[in-house]
Amino acid sequence: MIRNAAGRYVPTELNGEKQIPYMGVGKYIPSGTKHAPAIRSNSEFPEDGNKMVSSLKEALQKAGLKDGMTISTHHHFRNGDLLANMIFDIAHELGVKNLRWFPSASFPCHAHLIPYLEDGTITAIEGSMNGPLGKFVSEGKMKSAGMLRSHGGRYQAIQDGEVKIDIAVIGAPTADVFGNANGLHGPSACGLLGFALADSQYADKVIVVTDNLVPFPCIPWQIQGNYVDFTVLVDKLGDPEKIVSGTTQITKSPDRLLLAELTAKFCDAAGIIKDGFSFQAGAGGTSLSVAEYFRAIMRQKGIKARFARGGSNKYLVEMMEEGLVDYILDGQTFDLDGVRSMAQNPNHTWTSPFTSYNYHSKGNFAQFVDVVILGATEVDLGFNANVVTHSDGYLLHGIGGWQNCLFSKTVIIPVPLFRDRIPVVRDEVTTLCGPGELIDVIVTERGIAINPLRKDLIEKTRDSGLPFKTITELKEEAEKICGKPSKPVLQEKIVAGIKWVDGTLIDVVRQVQS
Amino acid sequence: MIRNAAGRYVPTELNGEKQIPYMGVGKYIPSGTKHAPAIRSNSEFPEDGNKMVSSLKEALQKAGLKDGMTISTHHHFRNGDLLANMIFDIAHELGVKNLRWFPSASFPCHAHLIPYLEDGTITAIEGSMNGPLGKFVSEGKMKSAGMLRSHGGRYQAIQDGEVKIDIAVIGAPTADVFGNANGLHGPSACGLLGFALADSQYADKVIVVTDNLVPFPCIPWQIQGNYVDFTVLVDKLGDPEKIVSGTTQITKSPDRLLLAELTAKFCDAAGIIKDGFSFQAGAGGTSLSVAEYFRAIMRQKGIKARFARGGSNKYLVEMMEEGLVDYILDGQTFDLDGVRSMAQNPNHTWTSPFTSYNYHSKGNFAQFVDVVILGATEVDLGFNANVVTHSDGYLLHGIGGWQNCLFSKTVIIPVPLFRDRIPVVRDEVTTLCGPGELIDVIVTERGIAINPLRKDLIEKTRDSGLPFKTITELKEEAEKICGKPSKPVLQEKIVAGIKWVDGTLIDVVRQVQS
Repeated sequence: MIRNAAGRYVPTELNGEKQIPYMGVGKYIPSGTKHAPAIRSNSEFPEDGNKMVSSLKEALQKAGLKDGMTISTHHHFRNGDLLANMIFDIAHELGVKNLRWFPSASFPCHAHLIPYLEDGTITAIEGSMNGPLGKFVSEGKMKSAGMLRSHGGRYQAIQDGEVKIDIAVIGAPTADVFGNANGLHGPSACGLLGFALADSQYADKVIVVTDNLVPFPCIPWQIQGNYVDFTVLVDKLGDPEKIVSGTTQITKSPDRLLLAELTAKFCDAAGIIKDGFSFQAGAGGTSLSVAEYFRAIMRQKGIKARFARGGSNKYLVEMMEEGLVDYILDGQTFDLDGVRSMAQNPNHTWTSPFTSYNYHSKGNFAQFVDVVILGATEVDLGFNANVVTHSDGYLLHGIGGWQNCLFSKTVIIPVPLFRDRIPVVRDEVTTLCGPGELIDVIVTERGIAINPLRKDLIEKTRDSGLPFKTITELKEEAEKICGKPSKPVLQEKIVAGIKWVDGTLIDVVRQVQS
Repeated sequence: MIRNAAGRYVPTELNGEKQIPYMGVGKYIPSGTKHAPAIRSNSEFPEDGNKMVSSLKEALQKAGLKDGMTISTHHHFRNGDLLANMIFDIAHELGVKNLRWFPSASFPCHAHLIPYLEDGTITAIEGSMNGPLGKFVSEGKMKSAGMLRSHGGRYQAIQDGEVKIDIAVIGAPTADVFGNANGLHGPSACGLLGFALADSQYADKVIVVTDNLVPFPCIPWQIQGNYVDFTVLVDKLGDPEKIVSGTTQITKSPDRLLLAELTAKFCDAAGIIKDGFSFQAGAGGTSLSVAEYFRAIMRQKGIKARFARGGSNKYLVEMMEEGLVDYILDGQTFDLDGVRSMAQNPNHTWTSPFTSYNYHSKGNFAQFVDVVILGATEVDLGFNANVVTHSDGYLLHGIGGWQNCLFSKTVIIPVPLFRDRIPVVRDEVTTLCGPGELIDVIVTERGIAINPLRKDLIEKTRDSGLPFKTITELKEEAEKICGKPSKPVLQEKIVAGIKWVDGTLIDVVRQVQS
């Protein structure tokens, strides 16, 4: 174990792989070269370009599925995904063991895989584990430690050869026999396929699975068939109603509405909401409300945003259609309006973790976002934040693009001062996901704390009449109401590592007392 | 020297680099891995994403321009390009020597560089040399041998690490400060930037130069700023009237019209022109006429094509707008109608040498094209063809996508039986660019020869009434009129190598008697 630059003790080796401790923001400079996939030749592939095989099982067998491989999947179908479960059903049927699953995220629907984690079909999950799988891991039941990465960190890890994917299986709402694919059309339409981009580029074998085969060419080719080994047609990839919700709702909670209003007022006071600005709000109820407040302010000022970073939804699409936003740079469509807009409007641009978030490239566009509104399970006196574990130590959420968004110009976290009488503002976060130096403002219903590093924001908002407090005052207020929270008692065993955007280890998660 | 599988003598080493002799279509199976660029970090780049430097000179200096480097440029501005000349003016001014220029193609406008070839600023050109530079090379005046590759072969060479680019300079009709770029808008609009894709992905340093800077984000980002090191704003990148011609003309020559008509009639007789078919015609006068005959046949039959492969132009755009073509998969826009359509119509898809032509991938879409109409300077009794040299040995043309297109399902070459009383159909082509086994039909004004390998085509067109002849009969007929041509007397010195699509050496060009 070694103490990293954030003061957290992390192992120098985890799951048998050497780990680099977090060194501080921008401090670790990588050396070496990107992962270099094998050179292939057209002559090894069907002359007519038709790569269809009869079943997913056949595709997995032809791709050489065997013990110990790393299999990647993607969370474009969110809690409606059927594909990952199919893959491991087949692996189990074939008696393949000791697989590492490398999803871009897992959801409650993947609780189906718990028996395979118990019987040794799957040994490790590297990827966000939302809900049941997170609980399973938290209780120390997975053979290897999990490894959590941001969306950008996942791209970085694949690109850098930190994770070598043997077989990538890409669920494609629309595809052709060559393997060109997009997420825009078909019964499982999900919008885009950006989370699978790195896998298509760098995995050894790539399988595209669709339930909507179209004649060549499948346009646009969000995934390019030139990277694809096999294509498969199945009856159904996902449950549409769980892939994209028909409606996204703005919060009706007065507490959350207050958070949203305070956040928007802060942005206005700080001079952030001006003509040509950019923002990322996200899809949660509070975030949606922030965007709605922005909309009102923009209308009133007669200004527009140059771009909004999505997760897109009905409200954001309406803003673009109303002329308040020039472009949506979208990483994930959260509802059917988002899917429709992306299919029809060229200004609704599909992005990827490469363009938006990869830290090991020559910049990424998160840097261009003027203000980003993010959530957190906990924040602390150093403005550090946690998004993966609850204060009881349970690992129940993924990182998503959260860490990557911290590189935006202003990062605001609106959180309630406490949840279920458990303070959100703490002495120290249970799990460190984002270093405080990148987090600028904490907005609570009982006051707003600005990171002392951001003297410019303090200066600009001084006379705004907004209820400013120090972060310590916020913590004390929370404790006055809820009492001083005790630290969770955790076991020694490390059940998961938390990677920073550069592949270094920023923290670990330990087994809960179960 | 070694005799390759096509019977041509090629060196095992050229310009100090080991060469693999051509082994036959699909016979060379590459080993090893793709070129792996260095891993970079966002922390090495400006925090605000703004990579602008004050001048091209500063960008080249910051990119570390020095003796012996490989500098790549692209031919999107065709004969209107000003950028390549600017780069080597700067190199000359700085006294940098011994550069290898790696353009995707060079044009007469680059005759400006001849003094730099003479004074040692540039030692070698690898890329198509149209016109004056080709003449210069043919006469043995360039220090190193040239190396010609197809568009797909250029991607392959970069991807495979056969050519390592030190500095790629990408001319961008529209760009933002981050380096996102497209060819769709601005005074130098050229349509797309596909020829620069490989360079952006694999070059060590990448400079984007624009004369039309837009606020972030430049959408679409045909070139992604995440690959870009520096951005530069200049007054003018190209001469618009030479970049895209305002008009593209169908041939008025009765001979060429006859070739076009015979070609279209052959396709019809062979059953190729059917609902959902695909074709690539190209932008020459004869090819345009073929497309116009196709159009008439399609209208008459009430059918449409699934896609047409561009080079796009007014006629192809009209066909799509008329509903005769679902998609244009475009590699290069040849006129302003092509540029406009690509900017406005999502079915007018911009492609790249990766998606269309790279032979060292898991297939490419040339395989899907039902029929392709190509040109040639010479064809021979083995159905082999030459596109780079004239019969006097002068290297005056590039390969373009020609070799790559040979993988289409049916390849037709309409050529006059002779040009300026020099027979086009010969015993043996002067320079071998495409092996006869991939070339199916030679159409001349005095008869059509089908490759005996294509028994299916012979069978289908037997009763069509078209004027079929053997290739030998065509040759004899040409010689009856023009006399038996003598082989050009060439010197020993190899002035250029001709690569096959897989990086092997299919032939060489020798110095002419000057």
